[in-house]
Amino acid sequence: MPRFTDLVAVLSASVPFVGPEAQERARKRTFKARIGANESVFGPSPKALRAMKEATEEVWQYGDPENHDLLRALASHYGIKSENIVVGEGIDGLLGYLVRMLVKPRVSVVTSRGAYPTFSYHVAGYGGTLVTVPYTEDHENPHALVAMARKVNASLVYLANPDNPMGTWNSFETVADAVRCLPHDCLLVLDEAYIDCAPPGTAMEIDVKNRSVIRMRTFSKAYGMAGARVGYAIGHEELMNAFNKVRNHFGMCRISQAGALAALRDREYLSEAVGKIAAARKGISDIARGCGLEPVPSAANFVAIDCGADGAFAKRVLEGLIERDIFVRMPFVSPQNRCIRISAGTDADLELFKSALPQALEAARLQVAG
Amino acid sequence: MPRFTDLVAVLSASVPFVGPEAQERARKRTFKARIGANESVFGPSPKALRAMKEATEEVWQYGDPENHDLLRALASHYGIKSENIVVGEGIDGLLGYLVRMLVKPRVSVVTSRGAYPTFSYHVAGYGGTLVTVPYTEDHENPHALVAMARKVNASLVYLANPDNPMGTWNSFETVADAVRCLPHDCLLVLDEAYIDCAPPGTAMEIDVKNRSVIRMRTFSKAYGMAGARVGYAIGHEELMNAFNKVRNHFGMCRISQAGALAALRDREYLSEAVGKIAAARKGISDIARGCGLEPVPSAANFVAIDCGADGAFAKRVLEGLIERDIFVRMPFVSPQNRCIRISAGTDADLELFKSALPQALEAARLQVAG
Repeated sequence: MPRFTDLVAVLSASVPFVGPEAQERARKRTFKARIGANESVFGPSPKALRAMKEATEEVWQYGDPENHDLLRALASHYGIKSENIVVGEGIDGLLGYLVRMLVKPRVSVVTSRGAYPTFSYHVAGYGGTLVTVPYTEDHENPHALVAMARKVNASLVYLANPDNPMGTWNSFETVADAVRCLPHDCLLVLDEAYIDCAPPGTAMEIDVKNRSVIRMRTFSKAYGMAGARVGYAIGHEELMNAFNKVRNHFGMCRISQAGALAALRDREYLSEAVGKIAAARKGISDIARGCGLEPVPSAANFVAIDCGADGAFAKRVLEGLIERDIFVRMPFVSPQNRCIRISAGTDADLELFKSALPQALEAARLQVAG
Repeated sequence: MPRFTDLVAVLSASVPFVGPEAQERARKRTFKARIGANESVFGPSPKALRAMKEATEEVWQYGDPENHDLLRALASHYGIKSENIVVGEGIDGLLGYLVRMLVKPRVSVVTSRGAYPTFSYHVAGYGGTLVTVPYTEDHENPHALVAMARKVNASLVYLANPDNPMGTWNSFETVADAVRCLPHDCLLVLDEAYIDCAPPGTAMEIDVKNRSVIRMRTFSKAYGMAGARVGYAIGHEELMNAFNKVRNHFGMCRISQAGALAALRDREYLSEAVGKIAAARKGISDIARGCGLEPVPSAANFVAIDCGADGAFAKRVLEGLIERDIFVRMPFVSPQNRCIRISAGTDADLELFKSALPQALEAARLQVAG
């Protein structure tokens, strides 16, 4: 075989998430409700759809490697310079580049135990030592993360606000205060994939002079364009420029670039989508309570539902939902894995979930009794 | 600043190619003919266009991380197993993953002097030592590459067949013979981006049992979908599986997946596009000869034209074309940089090129005389 690097030779092939399509193929049956991957069933702005359809006619051309138009629009939206933004192939792609820039064997990285698996996948992939901090009452704990970063001399700390898989959030004061406590050469990557769905006061003010923080945002969630793969990072100019050392300059889909630009401009549609997401969160929470379960308050486009027992029980509930053609997921790690995680769905999706959940619960309880 | 790895700290920000859009912004004028990036002006199959337009409606969903349908279709097309194929974000993306798997500081990698810059960009990005071999009469020299690989104990050798930027090609016998001479733990990455445009007898037979070769192909060239970012690699199952250790599983655009699948199925359209490309190659060659210049015989979707003097002269010709709103590129390295490189264009593109070339030549000669 070829001479893999020592690092890659010992890595195992892994995937952070199994896709719903793979499950459908294994089940030989399609899902009736796709509310497991925190996608937005409400889809993108019709203007973004139109822009993408039109851009297919230009798909023979590579996308602009500078992402110029989208960068400028984002810069204007945030009142910052385009030098403070990098556009990439989703937050996943950008996290990969960032980890590559900072992590090598024997470098410590801090995250919450059970936080976003794709980040951990990248850290493992570059040989970093992942150090985890437990959630505090289902919330990521910014101060504990920073304290651990100091303790293990970490180069990088990951915090999602709002958090995935729990949907909980920290106030901007808490996050900003933790940032002030960061060791001077430690970078906080603040994953704000769900920020558009969060209540006011969740996002820190954007301060691109601060070299300690890089924020990541996306068109995959509230904007409803997960399949297009467009994310962006905001931060200090020097850090942003470092992405140009490693990024795949011609990696962006031209259709997606056009879609993101149009989506960004349609503020009205975004508000509308965020409203629908909030309503769906309430719907999911009501369904949970109707079954005697406790929903975890969420600022994201999904709700974690505490199934009231351990991970094994929640897993049975999850399996019961999947058997009933409802695609959902659940946290991987205890004690968060006592929950199942339901993405905002259409009314029809929630109706299906509403009828399936009591059955799945009943079946899970019977299994325990059995 | 954050603690970059030693490797990334010393890398400089660079881009393998400046995009035509960036040039248009600098010039404050759009190009009238876009025949510089080896895109296909003939575009994708109408069926692929339709599939992409339809898939925009599903863009709220992540793409299938297993690329199942496209893998199966490719496997069936080649009569191999889907385990022998990896789909990725263009050949550029796949080259990045491959280099990551094999290259680290002090690992030697062999390529031709002046060959595909994006490959060299990845090798530099992972700290490899790039060793180059000169072209032999404008052809990459497979045996010289392999001999150098042996000499410097390389882990990886890059060969494009047909070659970019020259468009020349090696017969399958030559390549197969060179492969037989590879050191047993050295991998040849055979970039076949342009293979669909090449004459019969250019592609080696596909032998997925051979652990010494990985082939890369794309929907960016003859299929006319450069902006969609879909490439694939073919090779031994174990090597293909290693991509699952490092790839961005959710990195593919869902619209692009759908487009590639439809494009692959439309064999008739591909033949037609390849015919148009061949006709355009002839057109470009005729125009060159009409100006007393020598076109380099090409098996790709472009033609390198020998401007008959040195790199400085060819650069002036290139600049003359760009001033006349014709976007073209040229090889970066001597002696190939005595050429300019013209991608297959529409009849209208070639008409513009035909009228601009004599003027650009004349202006370049006057500069020399002056």
